[in-house]
Amino acid sequence: MPLSGTRDTSPAMSTRISRPPFRRSGKAQKGRPGPPRAFAHDRDADGPVILYGWHTVTMALQNPKRRIRKLLLTENAARRLAEENIPTRVAPEMVRPNEIDRLVTPDAVHQGLLAEADPLPSPDIETLAQEGMLLVLDQITDPHNVGAILRSAAAFKVNAIVTTARHSPEATGVLAKAASGALELVPLVTVQNLARALTRLNERGFMTVGLDSEGSDNLSAVALRQPLALVLGAEGKGLRQLTRETCSAVARLDMPGEIKSLNVSNAAVLALYIGASKLGLL
Amino acid sequence: MPLSGTRDTSPAMSTRISRPPFRRSGKAQKGRPGPPRAFAHDRDADGPVILYGWHTVTMALQNPKRRIRKLLLTENAARRLAEENIPTRVAPEMVRPNEIDRLVTPDAVHQGLLAEADPLPSPDIETLAQEGMLLVLDQITDPHNVGAILRSAAAFKVNAIVTTARHSPEATGVLAKAASGALELVPLVTVQNLARALTRLNERGFMTVGLDSEGSDNLSAVALRQPLALVLGAEGKGLRQLTRETCSAVARLDMPGEIKSLNVSNAAVLALYIGASKLGLL
Repeated sequence: MPLSGTRDTSPAMSTRISRPPFRRSGKAQKGRPGPPRAFAHDRDADGPVILYGWHTVTMALQNPKRRIRKLLLTENAARRLAEENIPTRVAPEMVRPNEIDRLVTPDAVHQGLLAEADPLPSPDIETLAQEGMLLVLDQITDPHNVGAILRSAAAFKVNAIVTTARHSPEATGVLAKAASGALELVPLVTVQNLARALTRLNERGFMTVGLDSEGSDNLSAVALRQPLALVLGAEGKGLRQLTRETCSAVARLDMPGEIKSLNVSNAAVLALYIGASKLGLL
Repeated sequence: MPLSGTRDTSPAMSTRISRPPFRRSGKAQKGRPGPPRAFAHDRDADGPVILYGWHTVTMALQNPKRRIRKLLLTENAARRLAEENIPTRVAPEMVRPNEIDRLVTPDAVHQGLLAEADPLPSPDIETLAQEGMLLVLDQITDPHNVGAILRSAAAFKVNAIVTTARHSPEATGVLAKAASGALELVPLVTVQNLARALTRLNERGFMTVGLDSEGSDNLSAVALRQPLALVLGAEGKGLRQLTRETCSAVARLDMPGEIKSLNVSNAAVLALYIGASKLGLL
C-alpha cells in the first residue's frame, strides 16, 4: 500500500477527531472508498498522528515525550487501563466500539483505544550514538512492513531508523499498529537525501552495509563492526543505485531454497539477528 | 484480518471470473464493503483460487501440478511473458488493467496478471520426509503474515507447512501474493486437529519445538535435530495450551531490546534461520 503522497492541510484535524470523510484519490477513484483522512498525511505534516490498539496506545501513554491530544476509550479499555495502573494523561472521551470503528480502516483491530497525538520529534543524524546498530530504509513504502521492522528494531535494541522524508509511510495508523508500541522506543530519523545521510554516517565512523541479493559477500561472512548501519531497499526495486554505491559494503543473505528473496521485514529481522550475533549484542 | 469463516457455495465462481459482488459480514455490516467474494472461501472449499501478481502467477504457470482454469493478461504482461518464454498454458483473455483492478482488493498490485486456478492438493502428514524442517502454524489468520511465512519457508527449503483447516487463511488472493510464488514450492498440509498432527509427528520421529516467549530455553541454546518441526502460534494468543503441551520442547527467542515479541512472520524467519544454522542446512 504505497503512500498516496497527498498532504492533508485541513485545519479541522488538528483540533478534533471527527468522523473522517472518505477521500478519493488514485485507485479509490474507481468507486472504492479511499483511506480515512487521518491516514493520508505526509510524515512531515505537523498534523496529529492516530494511534490505536492496546500496545500502541499504552506505550504512547507511558512515553513522556509523546504529547497526547485526545484519547477515545471504550468502557472495557478504560477498565483495563485502570487495572494496569496506566494513567490516561488526558481526560478520555468514553465511546462505544463502533465510534472507533468509524475512525480506522475496516480491518483495524483497535481494542477500544484510539489516541490523537503529536508526532514524535525526529532526531538529527549528527546526534546518533557511535555504537550499536542503526537501520536505514531506502523508500520502503508499505506501512505494515515498516511497522514490523520498527518492532523488530526495538527487539534488537536498534538506536534509530533512518528513512527518507518522501517515499516513506507516515508514523501513524497502520504503521503504528504494526509497530506494536515500538514507535515510542525507536527514534525515526527523517532525512531529505539518503545518500547524503549515508555519507555522513560513513564520515562519522559507521560501517554502512547495504543488503542486496547481488551483494558480493554473505552477510554472515562479512567482518562487521560497530557502529553498524544496515541498509534495506524496497521489495522489487531493491537499493537505489546511489544508495548502493554509498554503502561501505553490500552483502547478501544466503539461503538454501529456491526463492532467494524475503519479505523486506523478514530480511530486516534476519540482518538484525546476524548483525547482533556478530557484534556480540545478543 | 481474521478469516470470516463464511463458505462460498456459489456455483458461478467455479466456472467464470465475474466481477465479484461485495458481501457484507462482520465489520462490513457497518456500511463498509466486505472482501470480494473470491477472497471469502474457506481453504477446504473446492472452489478456485485467485492468483495475481508477476511472481505469483508466473510460478503457478510453471508448476505442472497447478491446474490453471483461466488467465487474464494485460497487453504488457502478455508481452513480458512472451519475452521470458513462459507459456500461458491456457488461452489468455486479454484485458485492460482496470478490468483486473475490479477483481482484486483496492491496494492489490496485480501487475497485469490474474489467474483462476485449482487449489493445490494437500499432502498427507504421513508422507512428509523424515529429514529437514517443517513449519506448523497454530491458527495464524492474517494472510499477509502467512504469505510472508510461506515465502521464507521456500527460502529456507522447508518441506511443508502444516496448518489447521479452520482458523487459517485460504491459499488465495492476498496470501498468494504475499507468498510471491512460494505457494507453488511449499506444500500446505491441512489438518483437522493440530495436537493430533503433532502427536503423529512426534511418533514419526520429528522433534517438535514450539516457539513461545515463556519457553524454558533460548532456541539457539536448544540441541535441535532433524527432522525438525517449528511450531508458531498467533500473535497475542500464542500457542494454544494443547499445542504447547504436545510439542517435544518449547523455546523462546531471546532478544536484547525492550520489546520481546516480534511480528509472527519475523519470528518465523528467525526460527528458520536458527534452525537451519544449527542443523547445518545453510
